Amino acid sequence: MIQMALANSGSSAAAPSGQAQLDRSKWLLDCPEPPSPWQELKSQVKESFLTKAKRFKSLRKQPLPKRILSILQAVFPIFGWCRNYKLTMFKNDLMAGLTLASLCIPQSIGYATLAKLDPQYGLYTSVVPPLIYALMGTSREIAIGPVAVVSLLISSMLQKLIDPETDPLGYKKLVLTTTFFAGVFQASFGLFRLGFLVDFLSHAAIVGFMGGAAIVIGLQQLKGLLGITNFTTNTDIVSVLRAVWRSCQQQWSPHTFILGCSFLSFILITRFIGKKNKKLFWLPAIAPLIAVVVSTLMVFLTKADEHGVKTVRHIKGGLNPISIHDLDFNTPHLGQIVKIGLIIALVALTEAIAVGRSFAGIKGYRLDGNKEMVAIGFMNVLGSFTSCYAATGSFSRTAVNFAAGCETAMSNIVMAVTVFVALECLTRLLYYTPIAILASIILSALPGLIDINEAIRIWKIDKFDFLALIGAFFGVLFASVEIGLLVAVAISFAKIILISIRPGIETLGRMPGTDIFADTNQYPMSVKTPGVLIFRVRSALLCFANASFIEERVMKWINEEEENDENTKSNAKRKTLFVVLDMSNLINVDTSGITALVELHNNLIQIGVELVIVNPKWQVIHKLNQAKFVNKIGGKVYLTIGEALDACFGLKV
Amino acid sequence: MIQMALANSGSSAAAPSGQAQLDRSKWLLDCPEPPSPWQELKSQVKESFLTKAKRFKSLRKQPLPKRILSILQAVFPIFGWCRNYKLTMFKNDLMAGLTLASLCIPQSIGYATLAKLDPQYGLYTSVVPPLIYALMGTSREIAIGPVAVVSLLISSMLQKLIDPETDPLGYKKLVLTTTFFAGVFQASFGLFRLGFLVDFLSHAAIVGFMGGAAIVIGLQQLKGLLGITNFTTNTDIVSVLRAVWRSCQQQWSPHTFILGCSFLSFILITRFIGKKNKKLFWLPAIAPLIAVVVSTLMVFLTKADEHGVKTVRHIKGGLNPISIHDLDFNTPHLGQIVKIGLIIALVALTEAIAVGRSFAGIKGYRLDGNKEMVAIGFMNVLGSFTSCYAATGSFSRTAVNFAAGCETAMSNIVMAVTVFVALECLTRLLYYTPIAILASIILSALPGLIDINEAIRIWKIDKFDFLALIGAFFGVLFASVEIGLLVAVAISFAKIILISIRPGIETLGRMPGTDIFADTNQYPMSVKTPGVLIFRVRSALLCFANASFIEERVMKWINEEEENDENTKSNAKRKTLFVVLDMSNLINVDTSGITALVELHNNLIQIGVELVIVNPKWQVIHKLNQAKFVNKIGGKVYLTIGEALDACFGLKV
Repeated sequence: MIQMALANSGSSAAAPSGQAQLDRSKWLLDCPEPPSPWQELKSQVKESFLTKAKRFKSLRKQPLPKRILSILQAVFPIFGWCRNYKLTMFKNDLMAGLTLASLCIPQSIGYATLAKLDPQYGLYTSVVPPLIYALMGTSREIAIGPVAVVSLLISSMLQKLIDPETDPLGYKKLVLTTTFFAGVFQASFGLFRLGFLVDFLSHAAIVGFMGGAAIVIGLQQLKGLLGITNFTTNTDIVSVLRAVWRSCQQQWSPHTFILGCSFLSFILITRFIGKKNKKLFWLPAIAPLIAVVVSTLMVFLTKADEHGVKTVRHIKGGLNPISIHDLDFNTPHLGQIVKIGLIIALVALTEAIAVGRSFAGIKGYRLDGNKEMVAIGFMNVLGSFTSCYAATGSFSRTAVNFAAGCETAMSNIVMAVTVFVALECLTRLLYYTPIAILASIILSALPGLIDINEAIRIWKIDKFDFLALIGAFFGVLFASVEIGLLVAVAISFAKIILISIRPGIETLGRMPGTDIFADTNQYPMSVKTPGVLIFRVRSALLCFANASFIEERVMKWINEEEENDENTKSNAKRKTLFVVLDMSNLINVDTSGITALVELHNNLIQIGVELVIVNPKWQVIHKLNQAKFVNKIGGKVYLTIGEALDACFGLKV
Repeated sequence: MIQMALANSGSSAAAPSGQAQLDRSKWLLDCPEPPSPWQELKSQVKESFLTKAKRFKSLRKQPLPKRILSILQAVFPIFGWCRNYKLTMFKNDLMAGLTLASLCIPQSIGYATLAKLDPQYGLYTSVVPPLIYALMGTSREIAIGPVAVVSLLISSMLQKLIDPETDPLGYKKLVLTTTFFAGVFQASFGLFRLGFLVDFLSHAAIVGFMGGAAIVIGLQQLKGLLGITNFTTNTDIVSVLRAVWRSCQQQWSPHTFILGCSFLSFILITRFIGKKNKKLFWLPAIAPLIAVVVSTLMVFLTKADEHGVKTVRHIKGGLNPISIHDLDFNTPHLGQIVKIGLIIALVALTEAIAVGRSFAGIKGYRLDGNKEMVAIGFMNVLGSFTSCYAATGSFSRTAVNFAAGCETAMSNIVMAVTVFVALECLTRLLYYTPIAILASIILSALPGLIDINEAIRIWKIDKFDFLALIGAFFGVLFASVEIGLLVAVAISFAKIILISIRPGIETLGRMPGTDIFADTNQYPMSVKTPGVLIFRVRSALLCFANASFIEERVMKWINEEEENDENTKSNAKRKTLFVVLDMSNLINVDTSGITALVELHNNLIQIGVELVIVNPKWQVIHKLNQAKFVNKIGGKVYLTIGEALDACFGLKV
């Protein structure tokens, strides 16, 4: 390769194989017509559904019972793994499920209060959705149930429509209807293969959002921890701290605070022990349950509830009541509900799929994103029929499930059954459970949502991603949850626009000993070819937003080069003769871009410089042909910079 | 070149020059650190102002008088061309200026009524701004004054704040204050070198916007042409046609309509003659003035104004009154005014620069965009002090100026002086001018704003650009002027996002007889290398929005290839061994993109396939290094696909 490069690097040498080169230029100019945007869209949609269609076709050849089984397995993966299920696996799943339930019961009650619902709704949400997910989901580790961020989203957005204090029934209906719409959105994303929508919340945005949400949730817990009665309904840090400050001067319950803090310390210490000694993983998992039991006993024995310590009081027991009649589609808030349902659908899916993917990655299997969405969607729709609010995969509980050695989604079934038993038998025992304990359980789960290491890593790799992170974080903290999400999405897309239209050009030089041309800044050893300005647009599009800037830049550059040349050496030969535009990185041009190219060509001709184009992509060469630009520059389009130089100097010399 | 390519095309041959290749991989991996976003921003700003700073530095060495002259020339280009100004040039400019004035006087009065101001404000606006522009502007052909689209923008947006019928004085103040802000915005765009902001209205969007605006303006003229008194203040086509329909059933003036239509036909016929015979270019230019004179005489003689034909009546004569005291910054509408000022600033600049550039292109000189903006900004600021509303370069009058053979901006001065004389002496003669004639003069100028040929050209070249065009057109027509602009900008940027994050990959094959690898769809003659999947991401970014999709796509592709291979030939050797990712078109990756690459690498390893990376750009290789991805894939990064294949098969075979 070096020999040829050396042979060719003397750019004044005539092209060694003129005919072959001509042929290649012809290939370039006569390439087949690229698909139109419409055709591309069609083929994309077709391809998305092709795999399914193929599978159905191959099914037709099989006998009926096998066909039914195949379809069943496709819709309900449980029929796939169930047949190979062994007793040893069930042992593991049983242990994992029980551990999960012991963590899930207190967390569910806490999250229900965070969502401003009665405590039993949290427990309901830990019964039906996990069962549905176990039937339809493809993840083996994910632990389904209510989660902190979604609970916060629900209360922060819905309490603006109906106040849960004054109209709890109306608020409950609102929550159930929102859950229904969230489920419908999720299922349809999966069915219509719109999974990519979830990707629009970038990883960095999620890290920032979760961190901000964790702090907001923590601040909300100050109400329970301090035993405050009058609290703000805003979630931003300024309003909350002001409300706390005001309340602290009037009425707060020191007993409650001490109780909450001591149990919070207990839970955190057990977690520390669990981290140090991996065998004791179950200790932090059941610590919340222990805290509930001990604190409840303490309150019962000391009658602290008569001295200002607020307790949970009555929890309605029994199985999930049917709630189809509670779905209210005639409400004046329907538009708002659909919007909130969409936000919750996206956030919940993002969390579930992020959790599911990371643990699937550890165990070495792949999740089917679209199937996951259908499963989560159906579980929320059916959940909204059975008094459940929006459920998804929980970060903290999935980690516990994994650590406890779960094998399949059976652990979710075990957990659901356990929670169901608790609902039937144990709710009366929770009468004296202090609310401060629920607050401390929620608080103890929050550090897992704040991922400082990841934030540092993102800062190191990509400053713009970090900006999205910070935008989401401060948006959630100082404005509201929706604004935080909006800011993050806006920054992410603004970054895409900025990078894609960034004006600027980079000059290319020949890498020594090769026929490769590369950015002279990236490769300081590359050598510029005298008499030629080889440049590349620094962005992916030559479009209305950067075309005229780039045109001006090239002209300025040439003028400067000429001036420099005149100053240093008054050598007539050094004058720029050709401008070579390497288009290999241009994805597309638009009409403004082509206009700018025409203007550039006209301007260059006036100072006696020729414009040559190298390696335009399919869409680009097609458009240049359509606009007759290729004819205007005399067909000077080549496949490589080397060939372009050979042709240029071959003609001139 | 061919020889080397052939020698190299047997990919199982060992690399011919292993050491050189290693060196090149090292260059790639050890390239200097790219500038951070912050440094880039700094250098970009620095560069923008560098030219100015350089010039000032070189000035210091010169003697004082020359220095002052240089600075004067930089700020007022008139001092540059004035010294070489000759009498023959003045003759041409005089003729052009007088022609211009004869067209400008009736148009200005018409546009002032379109802007819902008294007629004299249109004339004022044709006196001061052209004079200022002649001092500061760099274009030689542009004709400055009130234009149709800006007049429409002003009336459609400002009459929502104050009704010009009930509070004409307040409305006038509003218009002047808006003009002031528009001028401030324009001048600061120029001073801070933010000229690129004007580019954000893409060419296609402007074509659509102008077309829509022309129809809206035409509809507004129905009021004058039909002699209707009660009209709607909305500008959308539905409201206007409904108002016209309602009025036509009650009261309209057939006399007025016949008068207007006959003179409209007259103007259009003269234009047709002017087009056929280029020597008669002056005929269409003075036809409006002839129409005004003849129709005024007719009304005066027949006393038609007593039979329902509405006339202009009293026009206040005399020079522009000072209006600094009319600028009102304490109005409650200030926020709105600033916003409207910004919109008007952008639209006016877009029109002026588009006009200026196209005629400068014909005459073969370049406009300084930033200087133009400063000139237009100052002329509007000073205009707002002297009872002028927002002026800019007019499409139609600039064409007349050019056809009349103007040589310099002197023609603008001649025109301004002529209009000034008219203001002093002739306003009383316009008392009987029928309003229908003004309507027909405006109507006759509209076809020039509708560019159907350009729309067809855009449709042929770029369907997405056409979508922006259509969006702007229908937005203006059916909603409002602002919404039309907003829709066009939104579509333009949505297109950028869509193209930049478009998910999808394209496979590359070797071009026969070369070492070049290219898209197999674009070049059907290219040959795939057995055992290797060489692919390229179809967009410019590997980011949160497309990374996981692309990852899944690659995995699916490999699985399909394997399946196909198993079906057709059960040849173990055909199995994919390497996946080569050509990164040469990737501008940037973000953290989600890197995560996807890591996952892809992990997934590939599990099925025994190696991932190789080729030609990452500066920012990309830097980030991959930072994220330690290069180490993860064992440093398998090469400069070209050929080298990558050589290295892969050299190691394996």
